[in-house]
Amino acid sequence: MTDRSNRQWLLARRPHGMVSRDDFELVETPVPDLADGEYLVRNLYLSFDPTMRGWMEDRESYMPPVALGEVMRCGSVGQVVESKNDAYAPGDIVSGLFGMQEFAVGGRGFMQGTPVAEGTPLTWPLGVTGITGMTAYFGLLELGKPKEGETVLVSGAAGATGSVAAQIAKLKGCRVVGIAGGPEKCAWLVEKAGLDAAIDYKSEDVEERIRALCPNGVDVYFENVGGPILEAALANLALRARIVMCGGISGYNEEKPQPGPSNLMNIVIQRARMEGFIIIDYAARFPEAAEELVKWVQEGKIVHQEDVQEGIENAPETFLRLFRGQNLGKQLLKVADPE
Amino acid sequence: MTDRSNRQWLLARRPHGMVSRDDFELVETPVPDLADGEYLVRNLYLSFDPTMRGWMEDRESYMPPVALGEVMRCGSVGQVVESKNDAYAPGDIVSGLFGMQEFAVGGRGFMQGTPVAEGTPLTWPLGVTGITGMTAYFGLLELGKPKEGETVLVSGAAGATGSVAAQIAKLKGCRVVGIAGGPEKCAWLVEKAGLDAAIDYKSEDVEERIRALCPNGVDVYFENVGGPILEAALANLALRARIVMCGGISGYNEEKPQPGPSNLMNIVIQRARMEGFIIIDYAARFPEAAEELVKWVQEGKIVHQEDVQEGIENAPETFLRLFRGQNLGKQLLKVADPE
Repeated sequence: MTDRSNRQWLLARRPHGMVSRDDFELVETPVPDLADGEYLVRNLYLSFDPTMRGWMEDRESYMPPVALGEVMRCGSVGQVVESKNDAYAPGDIVSGLFGMQEFAVGGRGFMQGTPVAEGTPLTWPLGVTGITGMTAYFGLLELGKPKEGETVLVSGAAGATGSVAAQIAKLKGCRVVGIAGGPEKCAWLVEKAGLDAAIDYKSEDVEERIRALCPNGVDVYFENVGGPILEAALANLALRARIVMCGGISGYNEEKPQPGPSNLMNIVIQRARMEGFIIIDYAARFPEAAEELVKWVQEGKIVHQEDVQEGIENAPETFLRLFRGQNLGKQLLKVADPE
Repeated sequence: MTDRSNRQWLLARRPHGMVSRDDFELVETPVPDLADGEYLVRNLYLSFDPTMRGWMEDRESYMPPVALGEVMRCGSVGQVVESKNDAYAPGDIVSGLFGMQEFAVGGRGFMQGTPVAEGTPLTWPLGVTGITGMTAYFGLLELGKPKEGETVLVSGAAGATGSVAAQIAKLKGCRVVGIAGGPEKCAWLVEKAGLDAAIDYKSEDVEERIRALCPNGVDVYFENVGGPILEAALANLALRARIVMCGGISGYNEEKPQPGPSNLMNIVIQRARMEGFIIIDYAARFPEAAEELVKWVQEGKIVHQEDVQEGIENAPETFLRLFRGQNLGKQLLKVADPE
């Protein structure tokens, strides 16, 4: 195999503030030989998620940081092209944290492959029925616990996770308001995803609009962004509101920690609950969630968008799209066709 | 009864920033005649609690604001001196929101009396076995859910609520660290209340001290103060920590809302839960809590302090002691002896 070359994006330096292309370095290395138990995966689609920004920092979190000089960690769907592991045969489609590179050795460190079921598009296991869809599923249902007739507010609502959370809330009989950036995303939320209303945070007074659109307050707030939008949501909590802390993308590229919401005491007054979660804690229940999500998408009850860029050379630029709010739905990068 | 005069402290104006004596006005009025169903209560001890600061603001909260020109609302223990209500006989001891005045008409508005059981000191139903003790009881046990061996951190730990929360946590087999202002309070916490350690926020680096004293992180944080101390606690959460949002006294007298903690995303990373509560929601379970608290205090398992000032004319000054951190334990004002 060593005659094959592998383009890899390494983490070249720790970002200061906004992540940039120069934080990564493209190298070309020979594909390594496989040891017993290992298998070679050719990446087909790379997945880009805001949480990857945290992995670039030199601090302990729910996963260790990516080391300098190491291949940048990311999720992907790939195809097994060679195997010294009986559980993986050439041709198999697997998903895993195979990183920003063309080829990965499965079975090393975090690079553990999960078989991908046949019958759905290759990209779904990275998005709507995969990590982002399941993040929406468990976050909304397990922490948010929306009840029929309640009002659910979702920030980052046009994103891969937010858009699924918002639609699951609709399926559960809730009134759902989404917050997104720009008229295109807002139109998609109302016209395609079936939300009751959308707020364009780029052109509207978010706090005022939430108040107008959620006159009885927000029962469940699914939080993806942080900053002033979190403060606006906290200003409009209903009694016993649940705040599902999924992420806070607005702060991920700030050089210094940004002040939190000034109205956190509303949590006391409204007897509200704010709770964080990390999707990997639900790994044992992934099959159940994926099955339900596949059904909903196939039945047309959940619509989704994928923003598919192309070419391994464009990986850092594709990642940056998330923080510029350029992605419409799940951000993917196609790097190869399956055989 | 109209030959009796009643000194009353009215809310004279809405405070701007730190509450001051001039926000109140002392008036002397005749005690009104009773209508059927009413009863006259002579206040014996007034109770001062940080939450009263919120009642002075012109905004809806868990209770309506005190109107300008109205008697300032506060809890008290009093004695029935006259009654046109069969449930209340002269001589009865009652507790209720009878306000900053010498006499109150029971049965009007919020001025509803709860009979006080005999056999314990008159002041207990305002503090250790009353509203502050029960706030500690339900907040810690229902929201904090401390398990044996866990680490519990309490801010405002020498206060009426914090000191009881900390000691209940000790009773449940937890390692307990308290945060308080000044060496006297810290010494009391360790030497009298039996805490494992105390942090003096006036002279110590709170975040560093929490890290040193809670090397495995904080499992339950009982929050009374807000501001930088909340941020320091959030920096030291254990996995699946529970943050009991009881109050945030550091912000109550700020003219403008203060920024919140910059590290709220730690709630995501540690899968933590932050939850607010208001003690009146637990009214149906007050007897159960009071009974257990009385037992613990009588058995010496919970110690408590009362800071008793004297004279109705000193009510505003007594209230201010809370925000200057001058009170050691429950802040009370004695205004009359029982007959």
